[in-house]
Amino acid sequence: MHILIIGGAGMVGRKLAERLAKDKAVGGKPIARLTLHDVVEPSAPAGADFACVTVASDFSLPGEAEKLVASRPDLIFHLAAIVSGEAEQDFDKGYRINLDGTWKLFEAIRQVGDGYKPRVVFTSSIAVFGAPFPEKIGDEFFNTPLTSYGTQKTVGELLLADYTRKGFFDGFGIRLPTICVRPGKPNKAASGFFSNIIREPLAGHEAVLPVSEDVRHWHASPRSAVGFLLHAATLDGEAVGPRRNLTMPGLSCTVGEQIEALRRVAGDKVVARIRREPDPAIIKIVSGWARDFDPKRALALGFRSETSFDEIIRVHIEDELGGKIA
Amino acid sequence: MHILIIGGAGMVGRKLAERLAKDKAVGGKPIARLTLHDVVEPSAPAGADFACVTVASDFSLPGEAEKLVASRPDLIFHLAAIVSGEAEQDFDKGYRINLDGTWKLFEAIRQVGDGYKPRVVFTSSIAVFGAPFPEKIGDEFFNTPLTSYGTQKTVGELLLADYTRKGFFDGFGIRLPTICVRPGKPNKAASGFFSNIIREPLAGHEAVLPVSEDVRHWHASPRSAVGFLLHAATLDGEAVGPRRNLTMPGLSCTVGEQIEALRRVAGDKVVARIRREPDPAIIKIVSGWARDFDPKRALALGFRSETSFDEIIRVHIEDELGGKIA
Repeated sequence: MHILIIGGAGMVGRKLAERLAKDKAVGGKPIARLTLHDVVEPSAPAGADFACVTVASDFSLPGEAEKLVASRPDLIFHLAAIVSGEAEQDFDKGYRINLDGTWKLFEAIRQVGDGYKPRVVFTSSIAVFGAPFPEKIGDEFFNTPLTSYGTQKTVGELLLADYTRKGFFDGFGIRLPTICVRPGKPNKAASGFFSNIIREPLAGHEAVLPVSEDVRHWHASPRSAVGFLLHAATLDGEAVGPRRNLTMPGLSCTVGEQIEALRRVAGDKVVARIRREPDPAIIKIVSGWARDFDPKRALALGFRSETSFDEIIRVHIEDELGGKIA
Repeated sequence: MHILIIGGAGMVGRKLAERLAKDKAVGGKPIARLTLHDVVEPSAPAGADFACVTVASDFSLPGEAEKLVASRPDLIFHLAAIVSGEAEQDFDKGYRINLDGTWKLFEAIRQVGDGYKPRVVFTSSIAVFGAPFPEKIGDEFFNTPLTSYGTQKTVGELLLADYTRKGFFDGFGIRLPTICVRPGKPNKAASGFFSNIIREPLAGHEAVLPVSEDVRHWHASPRSAVGFLLHAATLDGEAVGPRRNLTMPGLSCTVGEQIEALRRVAGDKVVARIRREPDPAIIKIVSGWARDFDPKRALALGFRSETSFDEIIRVHIEDELGGKIA
């Protein structure tokens, strides 16, 4: 099969490509070819025994999405997005990439015609929900996003469901939890500290905790995120029916529980590298975020994530630190 | 104040314009000017003591929405839409008018800038919901439309909420019930019979009932629809907060209850003009439609509709038949 990843240079896209190189197949079907696309040239995964093509372009520009689907990939992962903070600051750019770009991609697939009907897996977000919400958000709770990013993701979900219903492709939208532990450098995203307070101490560095320990949030590891994408790639669309956007499973825990898990896995010396420095701006942003979900449908469809924060930390140590703690 | 109605040639648009001509003001503010727009030239309402301008254009074409908002109307009613059946048959046209046209209009308002922040009232639909749903659909139930029209209306709602949140205008989306009794000729819309079985017998004509009497649906009169629009025009946006899309109140009743109301209001002779002729296609379509709602928020905000089907019939006799039954 031929697979296309749009957003292949991002963290999840790279991990997905590496996993495909290792697995050599999706749902029992051997991979013949992988196209990795992003606005900057992505790198082909090491050790792939199939053809890898890398492409750099702005997929929201006229004609670009058409080029990407002209070779009729059987499976398309659409991971490309302007992230939440940037979409909020640059209104035009967020709408151009996240809404218009996604719509243009779906249209390009439809315009291929001639029986072409790929599986499309679209990464959505829990930002489709906006406070106030119940302590646990159920599968039938309404979408009232409070960011432009969340609005754009919700529109992408709706288009995906309608294009699927009309038979133009066979899509699934998956709402990722906050990915933790996110590898790489600390960033200034408001959600960065959830990962920073684990990753940095494990690497021997100090980390800043800007909120109180009773802040509760919804997490899954990068490994789980890749697992969600691959599971969505192999679901039986007809059996699932027309409701194609699913809140993924995750782990709900408080910052205090994250820290206690870190203590169990890595000890007091590592935990001592977390420095408390309350940031009123971040405290305010985070107070509007979802804390917990009841993702019954995704669980019934076989999606799985970590069941303890200890496990999330261990996944990070295995996948990013070669098993070693500083 | 200056008012713009987009979709001013439609049934609800005409009734709204007539009501404005009669009221001379909205929320206590005198009307100085009314612009009526549609794809066909709308007619100015009789007896208006303010300036009326009528404009015919396709508002989804580049530059047309800009022209409509260049005169900075204080209040914009956006009622223009490709209806459900046509949007389902002509996928491109439905998306072009209902989604892209609505987005272009919102963008045109934003681009005026310079402190311009009109009230925008957008007519959405109960088609934003798709079966299966609970017997009564609550205000926090999710949107899983099963038509392209419902998808396009949901996207319009999301854009309206985000543009409002960002301060580009001050919008409300109102989800109209099925409008009953719809005046005019019987049409081939799947929902047409809900009105046909009342309007035609009252006018001395036979009407066909294609479904069984236990079919339950959600209704409001054209007079109520105009009332919703005017009430939405005067709400305090800040007090309502960011959740700007509201399911309007309506009356839930079965076809059998509609017929018994007709008997009470107009007698057996009129009811005898209803002929049963089951239509499997219409039976199937209607089985997926919403039956009842629990529109707590709209009621709390002061929106009101009829509380009995007898009242809906009486409104029709008063407003359309000059009080006379054939």
